[in-house]
Amino acid sequence: MLIVAAYDIAITSEGGTRRLNRVAKTCLRYGQRVQNSVFECLIDDLTFVKMRQELTALIDPELDSLRFYNLGTRYENKVIHIGVKEVQDLAGPLIL
Amino acid sequence: MLIVAAYDIAITSEGGTRRLNRVAKTCLRYGQRVQNSVFECLIDDLTFVKMRQELTALIDPELDSLRFYNLGTRYENKVIHIGVKEVQDLAGPLIL
Repeated sequence: MLIVAAYDIAITSEGGTRRLNRVAKTCLRYGQRVQNSVFECLIDDLTFVKMRQELTALIDPELDSLRFYNLGTRYENKVIHIGVKEVQDLAGPLIL
Repeated sequence: MLIVAAYDIAITSEGGTRRLNRVAKTCLRYGQRVQNSVFECLIDDLTFVKMRQELTALIDPELDSLRFYNLGTRYENKVIHIGVKEVQDLAGPLIL
C-alpha cells in the first residue's frame, strides 16, 4: 500500500535540527522523498507499524508533528503532481 | 472527498516568499492547515479542479512543487496523527 508520511519538526527548539535529520533519514529508509517534508512509502501493514514506532520515538510529541495518509493499494489515480519534480536538496527519481 | 494538498515553494528564489504566502492563503480558503505546508480540504470534484487551477497559476512550475492526494469520501481511518496538533508558526518561516 502507499503511505504518505509528512512531518513538521520544530527546528528552532533544542535538538530540533537533530530530530529533523533523524526523522528524514528514517523516512528515507522506508520510501521516497517527494517534497522536503513529505515521503511516499510503498510498504505493508507490518512495516508501516514499524515505521510509525521508529518515527514516534524520534520526535518530541509536544513540539513536532507526524501525519500519515493511507492511500491503499489502488493509489495510481489518487496522486497529482504539479510543478518541479525534484526535491531540491535530495536527488532521486520519482515513481509516481 | 478529502484532498490533501502539500507544497514546496522555493522561498529563496526571486518572489518566493510572495508565492509562498499566496499559495498558503489560497489553500486556507479551501481547507485546514495540518502542517506548515500540508492542508486537508473537504471539497467536491469541481472545487478541487478550481483549487488546482488557482494554485497552479500561483507557483513557478520550474521551482515550486504541488502535490495532491485524493483520500476519497471514506477517509476517517486513513489518517493518523502523532505529536503536536497545532501548527506552530503560521506566519513565520517555513519549517522544512
